Amino acid sequence: MKQESALMRGPNDPGLQNPSRRTLLLGSAGAMAAVSVLGFTPLAKADEPKSLPDYAAWKERNALIVHSANTMETQRGAIGNGVITSSDRLFVRNNLPAPPASVTDNPDAWEVRMEGVKNPRTLTVGDLKQMGVTTVASVLQCSGNGRAFFPHGASGTQWSVGAAGCIMWTGVPLKDVVEALGGPVDGTRYITSTGGETLPDGLDPKTIIVERSVPTRAMETALLAWEMNDEPLTHTHGGPLRMVVPGYYGVNNVKYVKNVAFTENQTDAKIQASGYRVRDVGVKGAPDQPSMWEMNVKSWVTSPLESGQSGRNMIYGVAFGGTVPLEKVDVSVDGGKTWKQARFLGPDLGPYAWRPFVLAADLAAGEHRIVSRATDVQGNTQPEGRIENERGYGHNGWSDHGVTVAIS
Amino acid sequence: MKQESALMRGPNDPGLQNPSRRTLLLGSAGAMAAVSVLGFTPLAKADEPKSLPDYAAWKERNALIVHSANTMETQRGAIGNGVITSSDRLFVRNNLPAPPASVTDNPDAWEVRMEGVKNPRTLTVGDLKQMGVTTVASVLQCSGNGRAFFPHGASGTQWSVGAAGCIMWTGVPLKDVVEALGGPVDGTRYITSTGGETLPDGLDPKTIIVERSVPTRAMETALLAWEMNDEPLTHTHGGPLRMVVPGYYGVNNVKYVKNVAFTENQTDAKIQASGYRVRDVGVKGAPDQPSMWEMNVKSWVTSPLESGQSGRNMIYGVAFGGTVPLEKVDVSVDGGKTWKQARFLGPDLGPYAWRPFVLAADLAAGEHRIVSRATDVQGNTQPEGRIENERGYGHNGWSDHGVTVAIS
Repeated sequence: MKQESALMRGPNDPGLQNPSRRTLLLGSAGAMAAVSVLGFTPLAKADEPKSLPDYAAWKERNALIVHSANTMETQRGAIGNGVITSSDRLFVRNNLPAPPASVTDNPDAWEVRMEGVKNPRTLTVGDLKQMGVTTVASVLQCSGNGRAFFPHGASGTQWSVGAAGCIMWTGVPLKDVVEALGGPVDGTRYITSTGGETLPDGLDPKTIIVERSVPTRAMETALLAWEMNDEPLTHTHGGPLRMVVPGYYGVNNVKYVKNVAFTENQTDAKIQASGYRVRDVGVKGAPDQPSMWEMNVKSWVTSPLESGQSGRNMIYGVAFGGTVPLEKVDVSVDGGKTWKQARFLGPDLGPYAWRPFVLAADLAAGEHRIVSRATDVQGNTQPEGRIENERGYGHNGWSDHGVTVAIS
Repeated sequence: MKQESALMRGPNDPGLQNPSRRTLLLGSAGAMAAVSVLGFTPLAKADEPKSLPDYAAWKERNALIVHSANTMETQRGAIGNGVITSSDRLFVRNNLPAPPASVTDNPDAWEVRMEGVKNPRTLTVGDLKQMGVTTVASVLQCSGNGRAFFPHGASGTQWSVGAAGCIMWTGVPLKDVVEALGGPVDGTRYITSTGGETLPDGLDPKTIIVERSVPTRAMETALLAWEMNDEPLTHTHGGPLRMVVPGYYGVNNVKYVKNVAFTENQTDAKIQASGYRVRDVGVKGAPDQPSMWEMNVKSWVTSPLESGQSGRNMIYGVAFGGTVPLEKVDVSVDGGKTWKQARFLGPDLGPYAWRPFVLAADLAAGEHRIVSRATDVQGNTQPEGRIENERGYGHNGWSDHGVTVAIS
């Protein structure tokens, strides 16, 4: 998502599919420099690359839809029904070119500066590993997951359902680090994290830097993570160190995190000030619009997807409540006319994790529209429709997320 | 473990390290036939194969100790601190040559015969998938895990701590299948599962077949599993279908299961009648000795293993209670003189799963013996020593499982 916000433009802008126009938007450094900054040349859909980029070559190609060299989503049929998403099937959304892959050769040497605390200090990952440790399961989801369903042609990667996964993160609770450094400075209201990507010359850093602010309430659950799914955090996913804010949209989980500051105000970096802001279609992003922080309640069906045989069918899917635990998931096989409560499958990994669900349904021959609708313990439930918005963020409408299955 | 039981012999038998003597024990079919049956030629320790066998070539070589072509354990340092063991790091213990790998080409076509129920029937995996589904995390552990610590030289693979892992299994609850078939026949006391390996000609099937009986109380939790860690169950680990009995030793989790029968008595197959029986050193196996069913409470340290720096050190390990949930784990850094309670790390995946644990300890320079001792909610706790027994089964003594670490 991060790159799209740096390239914010109106939905009818003809430059959307035009590389030279696109690069001009980045500033005066010229087209070739911009292409190099982004690490790839924007491609028309027909030119979609067939192979994985080098930095993600270890991924399971068949599980992914490769939108571009830095946007890959998990195929709906590859999401599975597990409580954890296998790392090699997890979506990828990179923004700036990553630091050299060699930073993960010696992860313990990576440094993060802690500021806005009573005793500011630079700590290595090696230091952090002795300060505390926790393991938290949390859904990682791009703010634009579901964007493909918006009819107004919201700009950005056309994610369907697969820009999401449930991940086991291991690292030090941010709270432990902050307490060891004397606590936040008085009057601070945000935690501002900065990514360690090298910024290109000739561009205003504020327009390109990955720097995100989240409210200090996130300190209770955030962690500085060095492991993902019981493996050292890969370069692909932000290693050696990533800010993880359980239940918050992906962009807030800053990769290669090199600076964490308690601040009075949100950063004025473009990715925060005007990017990731929910506003009406046609409106530009601005700091007074809602920011993409806590995720909303959401679910989708993962099986069956296309066809099936009449009789008993097991309908599978995944559901999560963002920062609020789930209450239930209902499933309809008639497009939402009638509903039955599904059963959760497998252990509950906590409030920020997703829960696979299953419902046994008897399906007659013919076409069925299968939809799911999750409800959290606070009574929030998925709406039927979209909340239309310029960039196609936060779509959790149950109707668009359904599948049409031919039963024979 | 299965093969060793078919090769049962006294601890002082000189044939233990002698391939030709060993093959003779198998019967009259001759040495070469026996070697072919076992799928490998027994090797002296110095000849330990350096590469993985073809059927396990997808495994992470560096995570494993390859004892032989059908016995590979996870390195202690590769166990990690995750709630689930990655499939490519999981130990392998095969017994008979597996059915052709092609059986997993179309897993839904695999058949299992259900007997000892009111309406006996042959079901395919495809049928089972419509009958019900559950996902259960359970420790898979070889009965002989820890055998290497027995001083009397218990015969069989010299497993240290790595013949164990915590796995997420998905399949149909056995209970659902049995209820659909009218329930067990009256008077049955055991669930007897038979593996689908092709038996070699010229040998008495009873001496070689993988057929295990467990008490019918296991019906409440057992499942017929077709997935492991959210992937179709591999041929390596018993796919297309495996009997999984949560909290029971590995051998009861019959691979390539082709027959499940409710029976009045335990099978008279050697692997049940005399194999996997706990008895004094020097005594032969017999049906009146305890069988290796439910696992006992156990833990071990996974980090640090060799050296460390003085000051604060995070001590990691894993612990489980077999069929009983854990209460706590205590850790000692002075060989058991003083203990501190560790903290569990990550979500609790249920009573049959293991729990990673961590303790922050201040270590002075010098040598430290680090040991861990788990206690379950019924008050069972790991003993200090071994319970000496002929085959080196069920070792959960905390002293042997510790590590000596040099702190500088």
